[in-house]
Amino acid sequence: MNRQFLLDKRPLGRDLEYTDFKLVDSDVPSPGDGEVLVQVMYLGVDPAMKGWMENRADYVAPLEIGDLMRGNGIGRVIESNHEKFPVGAVVSGGFGWQEYAVSDGKNIPLNPVPEGVPPTAPLSVLGITGLTAYFGFLEVGLPKEGDVVLISGAAGATGSVVGQLAKLKGCSKVVGIAGSKEKCDFLVNELGFDAAINYREEDQAARVKELCPDGIDVFFDNVGGEILDIALENISDNARVVICGGISRYNLAGDIPGPKNYFNLVFRRARMEGFIVLDYAPRFGEAIAYLAKHVAAGDIIAKETVMEGFEQMPNALMALFAGENIGKQLVHIAD
Amino acid sequence: MNRQFLLDKRPLGRDLEYTDFKLVDSDVPSPGDGEVLVQVMYLGVDPAMKGWMENRADYVAPLEIGDLMRGNGIGRVIESNHEKFPVGAVVSGGFGWQEYAVSDGKNIPLNPVPEGVPPTAPLSVLGITGLTAYFGFLEVGLPKEGDVVLISGAAGATGSVVGQLAKLKGCSKVVGIAGSKEKCDFLVNELGFDAAINYREEDQAARVKELCPDGIDVFFDNVGGEILDIALENISDNARVVICGGISRYNLAGDIPGPKNYFNLVFRRARMEGFIVLDYAPRFGEAIAYLAKHVAAGDIIAKETVMEGFEQMPNALMALFAGENIGKQLVHIAD
Repeated sequence: MNRQFLLDKRPLGRDLEYTDFKLVDSDVPSPGDGEVLVQVMYLGVDPAMKGWMENRADYVAPLEIGDLMRGNGIGRVIESNHEKFPVGAVVSGGFGWQEYAVSDGKNIPLNPVPEGVPPTAPLSVLGITGLTAYFGFLEVGLPKEGDVVLISGAAGATGSVVGQLAKLKGCSKVVGIAGSKEKCDFLVNELGFDAAINYREEDQAARVKELCPDGIDVFFDNVGGEILDIALENISDNARVVICGGISRYNLAGDIPGPKNYFNLVFRRARMEGFIVLDYAPRFGEAIAYLAKHVAAGDIIAKETVMEGFEQMPNALMALFAGENIGKQLVHIAD
Repeated sequence: MNRQFLLDKRPLGRDLEYTDFKLVDSDVPSPGDGEVLVQVMYLGVDPAMKGWMENRADYVAPLEIGDLMRGNGIGRVIESNHEKFPVGAVVSGGFGWQEYAVSDGKNIPLNPVPEGVPPTAPLSVLGITGLTAYFGFLEVGLPKEGDVVLISGAAGATGSVVGQLAKLKGCSKVVGIAGSKEKCDFLVNELGFDAAINYREEDQAARVKELCPDGIDVFFDNVGGEILDIALENISDNARVVICGGISRYNLAGDIPGPKNYFNLVFRRARMEGFIVLDYAPRFGEAIAYLAKHVAAGDIIAKETVMEGFEQMPNALMALFAGENIGKQLVHIAD
C-alpha cells in the first residue's frame, strides 16, 4: 500500500493540528513507459507549508482540500522504465507526502544527489531552505566584509545556513537568536556563530544592544513580531533587513501588528525587503554548486533533525512551529 | 530691531502650539570684515522642523531650548563687506527664523538664485523639499518607464515634485492622494497627475484598488499610517516603497502602530526603504541643475502657499500639519 497525507482542513489563524491532514491508503502505482517508481526515503517539512495549506501564498498553485500535501523528498528508484534513472538510483524530487511516487522525470523532476554530500542534503542545505539562505542573504542582504549580522530563527534550516554563509563572506560578527540553550550552544560551538541569544531566557532587546553596539548591518528575519522591532531599533546606517519569514505570525488571527519601528528605516537610510526564492530558479545551479562545495569541504554543516516513520509527517511540521527542530526537520520513511 | 523665533518647548507627541516658540527682539547685527547683512525676504517651513524641535532626529545637530529656530530663507544683501555678494544681491541660505542675518558666506553658506526661476525656487523646488523629491524618487524609488506611481501627501512641497518627475520619467500612471478637492484638482489639472484621491471624502482603499488594478510599482510615502498599509496591500511585484515622511504620525504619542501589511513585501518581493536627503549633498548641484532647467522650461511647476508677516512663522509650520498648504509653505517677511 501507498500511504498518503491529504490536506483536510485549512489551519488559518490557528495552530496546526494532526487532524488537518487525512491519512489515506492507496495502491502503490505502477510505472508506465518512460516512468520510474520511487520509494520515498526522507521527506522534509518547511514553515511555508502552513501557508500553502491556508491557501495564503499566491506565488504557488493553490492546494485544495483533498489534494496530496506537497513536499520534497529523497527516494530510491525501485522500478524503472527510464534509462536515465536505473533501479537503485537515489534521487530527490517533489514527491509529496506519500511513500511511493511515479515519475517520468518531468511531472516530478528528478535530480541525482550530488557527490560528497550526505544523501539528505538536497532536502536541506541544497534544497529550498539552503537556497533561501543563499539568495536571501547574498542577493537581498548584500553582506560586506566586516558587517554585523543578526539572524532570527537562527537554528532553523535557513537561519543556520545564513550564519555560516555570513562567516564565509567575512562578516565580522554573526549573532543568532534561538529558543533554547542547546540551540545557542550549537550555533556558537558547532556552526561558528560569534554569539547567540536564547530568546526564551534572555532579554532579547538588551542582549541585541549589548552584542551589536555599533548597529546591525544585515538582519535576516525568519520570525517577525517583537524581534523585528528590536532589530529595526538597532540597525546601522544603510542596513538591510531581509524579510524571509514570520513564523511568530503564522498562527495568529486577525490584524497582526506591524513593525512599529519601521520609521527608523528613514533615520538609518535603511531598507527592508522581501523575496521569493523561486524567483531565483534560473540560478539554483550556481547556488547548489557553491553550497555543495562548502558542505563537502566541511565549511558548511547541514544539520538535520529526523523523526521516524511516515505517520509522523504532521508532527514534524508542527514541531517547526513549536521550535523543536535544530536545522532541517526531516522524516525518515524508508531505508 | 531683528525679530527672532527661539525654540521654547518641545512638542513631543502632541500638536504644535504657537507658544512652543518664543518671539524675541534683538538688535540688527552689524556685518564685520568679509561679512554681509542679509534682510530675509522669505522663509520656508518643513515638517522635519517638528522633529528638530523634539530633538528626535539624530541626523541633524540637536536644537536646544532657547536656540534660534533653524530654517532656510531667501534674502537681499543690504550691507556688504564681501566682494562676492554686493548690496542688492538676492541669496538663499540657512538664515533661521529671523528678519536679519549676518553671514561670511561660510557660517551660513549663501547661494545666488539661479537664472530663469522664481526667486523663491531655492526654498521649494530647488531647496530641500525638491531635492528630497529628486533623490527619494529617482534614487530610492528607481522609477521605470510605464510604472504605476502612488504618492501620499501629493499636494505638498515634495509630493507635488515627485508626481511631476514621475511624468517626466515616463511613468504610465501617477496617482496622488491629498486632503481636499482643491488640491486634487490642482494635481490633475495643473501638475498633470493622472488621478487624485481626496482622502477626506473618498474611500482611499477602494480608490487605490480601482485606480491601480495591476498594482503600485512605486509608492512614495509622506504620510504613514493607514495609507501605508493600503499601499502595501496593493504593491506589484518588485515594488519600491519609499519612506520619505510620516506626517500622520508626528503628533501621536506612545507606541504608534507599524504597517501591519509589511509581510506583503515578501509575497510581492518588494522593498521598503528610507533615506536622508542630506546624504546626497555631494550631488545637489546635479539635481538643482536638472530641476532648474525643467522649472525654467515650464515642465515642473513650483507651487507655493505664502503667509504674510514674520509673526506667522509658527502658524505656517502648524498649517503643514493641518494640511492647509498646497506646494511649499512660505512666509513673506520683506520685499
